[in-house]
Amino acid sequence: MQHHNQKILDCTIRDGGLVNNWDFSVEFVKDLYKSLCDAGVDYMEIGYKNSPKLLKSANAGPWRFLDEKFLKEVIPVKGYTKLSALVDIGRVDEADILPREESSLDMIRVATYIKELDKALELVQKFHDRGYETTLNIMALSHVMEHELEAAFAEVRESPVDVVYIVDSYGSLSPTDISHLVDKFKRLLPNKLLGVHTHNNLQLAFANTLVAVEKGVTFLDASVYGMGRAAGNCNTELLVSHLRNPRYEVRPLLDVIERHMLDIRKKWEWGYIIPYMIAGALNEHPRVAMALRASEDRDKFVEFYDRLTSVEVAGSTQARD
Amino acid sequence: MQHHNQKILDCTIRDGGLVNNWDFSVEFVKDLYKSLCDAGVDYMEIGYKNSPKLLKSANAGPWRFLDEKFLKEVIPVKGYTKLSALVDIGRVDEADILPREESSLDMIRVATYIKELDKALELVQKFHDRGYETTLNIMALSHVMEHELEAAFAEVRESPVDVVYIVDSYGSLSPTDISHLVDKFKRLLPNKLLGVHTHNNLQLAFANTLVAVEKGVTFLDASVYGMGRAAGNCNTELLVSHLRNPRYEVRPLLDVIERHMLDIRKKWEWGYIIPYMIAGALNEHPRVAMALRASEDRDKFVEFYDRLTSVEVAGSTQARD
Repeated sequence: MQHHNQKILDCTIRDGGLVNNWDFSVEFVKDLYKSLCDAGVDYMEIGYKNSPKLLKSANAGPWRFLDEKFLKEVIPVKGYTKLSALVDIGRVDEADILPREESSLDMIRVATYIKELDKALELVQKFHDRGYETTLNIMALSHVMEHELEAAFAEVRESPVDVVYIVDSYGSLSPTDISHLVDKFKRLLPNKLLGVHTHNNLQLAFANTLVAVEKGVTFLDASVYGMGRAAGNCNTELLVSHLRNPRYEVRPLLDVIERHMLDIRKKWEWGYIIPYMIAGALNEHPRVAMALRASEDRDKFVEFYDRLTSVEVAGSTQARD
Repeated sequence: MQHHNQKILDCTIRDGGLVNNWDFSVEFVKDLYKSLCDAGVDYMEIGYKNSPKLLKSANAGPWRFLDEKFLKEVIPVKGYTKLSALVDIGRVDEADILPREESSLDMIRVATYIKELDKALELVQKFHDRGYETTLNIMALSHVMEHELEAAFAEVRESPVDVVYIVDSYGSLSPTDISHLVDKFKRLLPNKLLGVHTHNNLQLAFANTLVAVEKGVTFLDASVYGMGRAAGNCNTELLVSHLRNPRYEVRPLLDVIERHMLDIRKKWEWGYIIPYMIAGALNEHPRVAMALRASEDRDKFVEFYDRLTSVEVAGSTQARD
């Protein structure tokens, strides 16, 4: 099977920033961008385009609140790889979004829960009108009932959004689940390209992405060495190595891992870590597991499991992806 | 989907022994056995039943050459979990294999390459005649051409072997490959139960095992915290957590990981490590990558990749699983 239609979107800086509070040096980001261009990766999500006025975020690195002037300094000349940024509903100041021809960004992605879809579609419309490629990233799908999805998608079909993403926020979905969701999205959104964003709590991020590819999903999120929140994402190097497209070249990514990611991993943790596995298996947001890992009880797995499976605290409230 | 027919075989001691030269304490193995019983795991592969006379193995722990008297001391009273041992052709002394009623072992598994299948089937016949459950573990299937398999399997159908394993020795198979192999094995061996043994070089060990389950494969190899040679195996805790069978209980395994595996992992390495990923992606035996990891050049990924992809050294010779 050839994979000439797929697009890989590397979200190392954006999702990985949730691990290290966006503490990436400009040198590293420049180097990563060059490597992604050399590897033939189609998009680099270089951060969030939220507003520091609307979101408290102490000491976060500049990739948390991308500034166009700063972006031009980091990447004065663009190569093969396009740039994207993610925005959250209620955290983005629309006035910050320049017309595309004045921006370094090619694509703006809007993350949303199903219940905020209306607001998300309004944002999508505005960014589309300013000339950007747009995506709608529907989070926490493992907590959405099917009739909610069906009712909501009539509006999505009418929206100018280019790509609709299946987001496995909790890393709880199996290949069978992904296959089922892709079928449903294809049926409900026949006029849209689809994307998939996976988390690796159950060591299924890459496999789930491959299922999506086989089913015809176009946009594939991934991060180098899997660096992303909690258990991390599908590994960019695995996708680039696996997909049959002569554009993709894994060597530049091995080089980035060797020169940067090993050191970053020593300082910050992500990946298959038991509390994240437990949260994924229980279909829970990883926030409780992340709090555990930041505490003295970080390795008290059984106590954590007992806490999450006791009746008193079962179920979590929704929160940001 | 219910999974009442599946059997999990935990090979932490046997395959994990390839990581630490079988340096597991008796206390740990006793504790692991109890936990596997509590978790409802069906089999524990407690080591190799090769002969120290036929195989040099400096300073290996006792699980490398299981002795029946020693086994009785380690596990004087058996619980739910049956015990198995693996043998290699040319390394097992048949005289060491007691009749089953005098042995702690329930099952003997014979690892073989396709070209040694005749010898393997002779061993299977003998162990079967001594009362054991038997399996045939066909290694390195990613290097076997389909017509070889078809020719060889006429004999396997006639053998008394209980289970025939698909072994992804190089961790190079995708879910699509596994699906294809299971279909082929089912067609060629309609009278045999099937098993699957995966490696995690491409982070596909669990996903590949799930594909096998969906296709009706019965025996599922796994190891706790994935501890197995090089990239390791499918994680027992993931399988136990995922399969829908009221017998399985993940909590005892979380306990073992918390109390033992974290420390073992600090001392010994296995898992998703880039040279193993490279070897898996290139469908190569991990031995060259293991040698790299034992050298000063352990993190020189690009140099390693260039070496394995240069014309001069392409292809590896066959070696033991």
